[in-house]
Amino acid sequence: MDLQAYLTSHRQAINTALLEWLQTPINESTRLVQAMQYSLLAGGKRLRPILAIAAAEATRGDTAAVLPAACAIEMIHTYSLVHDDLPAMDNDMLRRGQPTAHVKFDEATAILAGDALLTKAFEIISLQQDDQLSDYSRRLDIVHMLARAAGHQGMIQGQMLDIDTEGQQLDLERLKALHELKTGALIEASVMIGALYGKADAAGLAALRSYASLIGLAFQVVDDVLNVSGNPARLGKAVGTDSVKGKNTFPGLLGLEKARQFAQELVQNALKALSPFDTQADPLRAIAAYVTERDH
Amino acid sequence: MDLQAYLTSHRQAINTALLEWLQTPINESTRLVQAMQYSLLAGGKRLRPILAIAAAEATRGDTAAVLPAACAIEMIHTYSLVHDDLPAMDNDMLRRGQPTAHVKFDEATAILAGDALLTKAFEIISLQQDDQLSDYSRRLDIVHMLARAAGHQGMIQGQMLDIDTEGQQLDLERLKALHELKTGALIEASVMIGALYGKADAAGLAALRSYASLIGLAFQVVDDVLNVSGNPARLGKAVGTDSVKGKNTFPGLLGLEKARQFAQELVQNALKALSPFDTQADPLRAIAAYVTERDH
Repeated sequence: MDLQAYLTSHRQAINTALLEWLQTPINESTRLVQAMQYSLLAGGKRLRPILAIAAAEATRGDTAAVLPAACAIEMIHTYSLVHDDLPAMDNDMLRRGQPTAHVKFDEATAILAGDALLTKAFEIISLQQDDQLSDYSRRLDIVHMLARAAGHQGMIQGQMLDIDTEGQQLDLERLKALHELKTGALIEASVMIGALYGKADAAGLAALRSYASLIGLAFQVVDDVLNVSGNPARLGKAVGTDSVKGKNTFPGLLGLEKARQFAQELVQNALKALSPFDTQADPLRAIAAYVTERDH
Repeated sequence: MDLQAYLTSHRQAINTALLEWLQTPINESTRLVQAMQYSLLAGGKRLRPILAIAAAEATRGDTAAVLPAACAIEMIHTYSLVHDDLPAMDNDMLRRGQPTAHVKFDEATAILAGDALLTKAFEIISLQQDDQLSDYSRRLDIVHMLARAAGHQGMIQGQMLDIDTEGQQLDLERLKALHELKTGALIEASVMIGALYGKADAAGLAALRSYASLIGLAFQVVDDVLNVSGNPARLGKAVGTDSVKGKNTFPGLLGLEKARQFAQELVQNALKALSPFDTQADPLRAIAAYVTERDH
């Protein structure tokens, strides 16, 4: 399959939908919504929403119906970046090649825009629409799954650990556990939520969860590798920043070459996890390969 | 009715439930959850969750069943305080007589604890329980109502306006519009969510919405009055801070005495709005009176 065409077409659909969700009534604070739009539309890879769509496809779900949940997931991912970039957190000035939200606007606006993106995600996924998923109990499960993945036992806990352990030496198990929370939880939720729109039995769901967990970790390992060896112009952000901040990273722990190998192994195992699925899962397979091949 | 006994007993039930929602698995980042607990349990009035319970009571709903949603509302209120107190926002050091979250912990922890409280609210209200509200469509409505009230067209928009208009002179209409967003939206949602657990026809819901909107505004007017004339020890925070920050306030615009009268009128109108209701709405009536009589 042509992954680039697949990614491009889905990215366009997602970007259009994200903007539509932020159509602004006249009486709204322009700056708040502008900051939300700015952060949302600064050119992300849209990995998480595309994973949700691809997981629906793998399980023969209606991929168009997943789009609102996919947008909600991307809003949660974006809010987490806006808050992580704040001076009190990672203090990053550049994101996706552009000034971070608190640099472009100001700190108060960035905090509120992040809060608003998080809240908007739950507004979107609870909107009752004429889609196929009129199974309200399952819709509530999706709300719950997203909240758990993003919350104090998931992504936020991971970010807290990431800050708390700066300058400490973590072993491989603890570093993996940190990233299973910080990036893994939301990536796993993306795949599982997509699968809820399709038809998968318990074994299929378990296989997809395993796939998601493995590529989530691989994605983080590659992120760390690119922070050491990537091209800043291509990445749209500075490199070498993890080392300066005393962050625990996979290349720091394993060395650059071993970290690259580790990412490859994770992706191989992710592909194995998909073996029960037919060609409908090819986009998921292609995304797994893309995770280690990407240069940004 | 004995309002103090009513408030005390419901506050206890709410405080117990709030703690139960944060029961911590062993592997959790202690500091993050401690910061969530610290902010949640620093002795708030619990006005919003009690309004939700009283609205269910007024509409003959099962008040015990409202408790999870009531806790979710209080978590959203608390997160908004934690973020509003941040240095980049109102830069407040004292809240409810205690150091604010970023003073007690640190700024990163306060940002993350606020994010986690907001997320936890949606985790709680989407949890499928064996309560009377197995009408999943209505449960989704509650998620949606809460997200809209708290989001970029509600509370967050109000906070943005509040910051943006510091030092500007607002007229009464614009000041009211600001507070209808900043405090009114969530207070209104509290009453309406409570009513969804009961049985109210369209006229009853409209009356409750009007009641909520009026006491929401009255509550803010009294807040502003107490910031001028209150007792700091009783309030648990400094007074005179609005004036120092150049905030638009009702006493600043109307004068202290006229602001007090305005609050009284709002409460009288709120009581009139409740006239279609029988004695089951007495707690809502008592709370309306309490709004203007409180000294903290």
